[in-house]
Amino acid sequence: MHVFTYACLVSTQAQVLYDFAAEPGNNELSIREGFITPGWIEAKNSKGEVGLVPEDYIEAQPFTSGGNAAPLDLSFFDSHMPTPASTAQTSNGNDPWTVFDNNASGGFSNNWAAQPEGTETGKTSSNAWHSGGHGHPQAYQGPGAEDDEWDEEWDDVKSSGGYAESEAGEGGAINRGGAHGSSMKIALNNGEVGPVWAYPDYQLDCVVADPKKGSKLYGLKSYIEYQVTPTTTNKPVNHRYKHFDWLYERLLEKFGSAIPIPCLPDKQVAGRFEDEFIKMRMERLQGWMTRMCRHPVISSSEVFQLFLSYKDEKDWKMGKRKAEKDETVGVMVFSTIEPEGLPDLDLIEVEQKCEQFNRFTRAMDDGVKDLLTIGNEHWKRCTGPLPKEYQRIGKAFQNLSSVFTSSGYEGEAALTDALTAAGKTYEEIAQMVAEQPKKDLHFLMETNNEYKGLLGCFPDTVGVHKAAIEKVKEADKLVAAGKITPSDKTTMSKRASTMSYSLQAEMNHFHSNRIYDYNRVMQQYLEQQVKFYEMIAEKLRHAHSRFTTM
Amino acid sequence: MHVFTYACLVSTQAQVLYDFAAEPGNNELSIREGFITPGWIEAKNSKGEVGLVPEDYIEAQPFTSGGNAAPLDLSFFDSHMPTPASTAQTSNGNDPWTVFDNNASGGFSNNWAAQPEGTETGKTSSNAWHSGGHGHPQAYQGPGAEDDEWDEEWDDVKSSGGYAESEAGEGGAINRGGAHGSSMKIALNNGEVGPVWAYPDYQLDCVVADPKKGSKLYGLKSYIEYQVTPTTTNKPVNHRYKHFDWLYERLLEKFGSAIPIPCLPDKQVAGRFEDEFIKMRMERLQGWMTRMCRHPVISSSEVFQLFLSYKDEKDWKMGKRKAEKDETVGVMVFSTIEPEGLPDLDLIEVEQKCEQFNRFTRAMDDGVKDLLTIGNEHWKRCTGPLPKEYQRIGKAFQNLSSVFTSSGYEGEAALTDALTAAGKTYEEIAQMVAEQPKKDLHFLMETNNEYKGLLGCFPDTVGVHKAAIEKVKEADKLVAAGKITPSDKTTMSKRASTMSYSLQAEMNHFHSNRIYDYNRVMQQYLEQQVKFYEMIAEKLRHAHSRFTTM
Repeated sequence: MHVFTYACLVSTQAQVLYDFAAEPGNNELSIREGFITPGWIEAKNSKGEVGLVPEDYIEAQPFTSGGNAAPLDLSFFDSHMPTPASTAQTSNGNDPWTVFDNNASGGFSNNWAAQPEGTETGKTSSNAWHSGGHGHPQAYQGPGAEDDEWDEEWDDVKSSGGYAESEAGEGGAINRGGAHGSSMKIALNNGEVGPVWAYPDYQLDCVVADPKKGSKLYGLKSYIEYQVTPTTTNKPVNHRYKHFDWLYERLLEKFGSAIPIPCLPDKQVAGRFEDEFIKMRMERLQGWMTRMCRHPVISSSEVFQLFLSYKDEKDWKMGKRKAEKDETVGVMVFSTIEPEGLPDLDLIEVEQKCEQFNRFTRAMDDGVKDLLTIGNEHWKRCTGPLPKEYQRIGKAFQNLSSVFTSSGYEGEAALTDALTAAGKTYEEIAQMVAEQPKKDLHFLMETNNEYKGLLGCFPDTVGVHKAAIEKVKEADKLVAAGKITPSDKTTMSKRASTMSYSLQAEMNHFHSNRIYDYNRVMQQYLEQQVKFYEMIAEKLRHAHSRFTTM
Repeated sequence: MHVFTYACLVSTQAQVLYDFAAEPGNNELSIREGFITPGWIEAKNSKGEVGLVPEDYIEAQPFTSGGNAAPLDLSFFDSHMPTPASTAQTSNGNDPWTVFDNNASGGFSNNWAAQPEGTETGKTSSNAWHSGGHGHPQAYQGPGAEDDEWDEEWDDVKSSGGYAESEAGEGGAINRGGAHGSSMKIALNNGEVGPVWAYPDYQLDCVVADPKKGSKLYGLKSYIEYQVTPTTTNKPVNHRYKHFDWLYERLLEKFGSAIPIPCLPDKQVAGRFEDEFIKMRMERLQGWMTRMCRHPVISSSEVFQLFLSYKDEKDWKMGKRKAEKDETVGVMVFSTIEPEGLPDLDLIEVEQKCEQFNRFTRAMDDGVKDLLTIGNEHWKRCTGPLPKEYQRIGKAFQNLSSVFTSSGYEGEAALTDALTAAGKTYEEIAQMVAEQPKKDLHFLMETNNEYKGLLGCFPDTVGVHKAAIEKVKEADKLVAAGKITPSDKTTMSKRASTMSYSLQAEMNHFHSNRIYDYNRVMQQYLEQQVKFYEMIAEKLRHAHSRFTTM
């Protein structure tokens, strides 16, 4: 088990969450980079020293978490993609896509530059992609990891005797009804606004609720399981955060080149405020799931359907294996996209659209961050000094009232009662002010946070596209140099068109969702703000009525 | 003129308003204490050096401005007071009041300790009080000042040929109809709450309005004249701030032992914000006048009636002279008070009431100051960081709207318009928030500031009373020692009773006014607060309605 864990996580960076001071002679050490073992973690620090550190001090981090897209290897797209317009398969020998350099797409090179030596990088040969599921640069899996052991560790069930013990064969995987597997085509239509994904008639959604504490290792470790209920089956399934994370990794790997997959809510060690943390995480998982449900390509994918509606543990287990072995990942996803009846695109026009979208997402990213900054400040003021001030005003009125009561003068009970009531009203207002951000600003912040994450994915998605365009632009030279045939060039153009259509469909999906989301969040925000101010006015009106006109 | 000015103001301390750095060889000097001359001021600094400093750098300050009551000299009360119960006048020789020590009444000794050497102090013999108006420790007048010159300087009319040139004789003073002069009695009734002043059927009030700039010295100096219109005559009279100050000094001198006379609004050199300053001063003068009008003793006094309704400049001039020569000042005012049909009071009971009132005023003083402190902080927040934050929220929404407009996506005009409108709404709210304190907090602060001033007067007023009580308590010993006769003792008791009744009437006056004022100010505050929050809710409701439900 120990050896496995090491092997399994050798390609996983660990983020150090807290400083840990090693006690000498205890096999502990100060850490910077670690490898998970049950209970404690055997970690290697920057000096190369190896030792144990408490598990809570570090956090596993897949390499892909720095960026948002699966590794870019357009050579694959080229080599294995069934050409949409039934062009003959180009030969591997002088394949125009194999010369593709990752560095051309800016955003990616950074992700891969961050990888430690000896692990897979985007520059490894396409052989790694052919090794039958092993060696996929997916999260929580590195070279040399054996699937069975990995799954057991992953499910944390070895000691608790959970469902991982029933080792299911590969043949049991079930194709989900209505979902497209790796062999199914993704439809791309021509809508009013240009290329759009084919939206289903029924909008899938799900409810993430009812977090329950589970435990394993005879109660030594506990975890939270959430109930996820899709609106299709209305049958709840249980998932831990790590299951969501597994789904995220699968989606990122499979669709990341074409569709921005927003990060999951932050991993975070549950601390003192566990209940609040769980609630917040659940809410954010709900937001993430809703966004995924709303995406026609993602929501109808086999892996997503598996996650939402696996029938039993065996079904889940088999589906998981199948998803992990899916080879239609990375740029290969474009081979499954069918821009029906759409003509090839003009490259210049495509580039301009790309540029416009790039500028837009950057500007929106700035705008969203601005709003988050001021929102955060406003939150602090509304929960900090402002209610304190209202409370002090309230106290001052009440204090004056009790001083007045001590005057010994007859007939001022009406005034002192009214003054006390006014004071209490301001104390109530103080509390309202302090609690209000949770009712309105919270959703505005959450939505903008979601968009911040989403916008952060676009540079990579757009980067894949730009790299392909660049390749097509070089095609003429390659034809002239006899490196590719004119037919190869036509194939490349068609493929680039498919990618462009898919990017445009994604842009349009983003825009329509954005319009929906911002309409909704602003309505919600303003509605709550109106209620808030109306309630204050009402309270003050009542306080006012208690003073007598003389 | 120069010599006069010096003489006139030798008993007046000057407050240095700004640092003034003297230029060497220019007869200028750094100042701490100065004497007014026209245009520039000949001032003496702490080193005793004399030189000229710009007039605006210093401000004249009467000695009495530190405290609030006329100098305490109970010997006077004793020597000259016509005993209400027609007791025989006690002889000056073994007069029980002449042994009275000012220091017994705490609050006063401080005021007088602050006086520079060579000027009149509270410890000077009563002879100073007999010198026919000269030497009264009134504002802007010191020993050696001649009335005529003083008046001319006071009116600033010597050069401009104003009405001071028509020197009016003493005999022209007119007794105002309905007003009690120094020879009239002040009625003291037994009300529901105990002793009360005799309130008039008609409540006097006045309007201070229409500030106009006047000038003198051929336009070299300008001043502001306010129009004061009493509700009785409805005929406006003009007064400068210094006239109000003259009235204040007269009232303090005459009634200060029995009635707390609140200070006038701060003297202040008009600066860049002259219009705002004038408006604020006018408003505060209005508040002060209204308070004086509401007091039955003050409002019916000859000097107050003169101020409100002098017929012409001659009438004003004569009335002014007469008021300045009034000898029924200080404790002598008690000799004019008639507690009709009220029995002599029990000393112990009186002392307890005094103590209770003392405790009350101190507690209220604390409460009022608390409210002022938090009010000030709230004011700062409402006019500073809070509206800035709303403005930034507004800008963030508008910015997001213009980013959205740049998306190139069709059909989001409804959203961007709504978002812009919401942004503008928050900018409007920012402005409302910033302007609101002037509409509500302002009056709450002004009223509490008034009360702070009023409450600051009570220790002195109560001090006069306590000192008298102490004297009466010593009377038994004095009788035993043969220093006073038993009849003297009875006289003293009766006088103390009068003082106690008058103090109680004043307490009751204070309480009833306080109840009225706080009812009114709280109503006003809450009414404006309600309007404020309702208007915000209304604006937000409108902003909300612009977002479309999808």
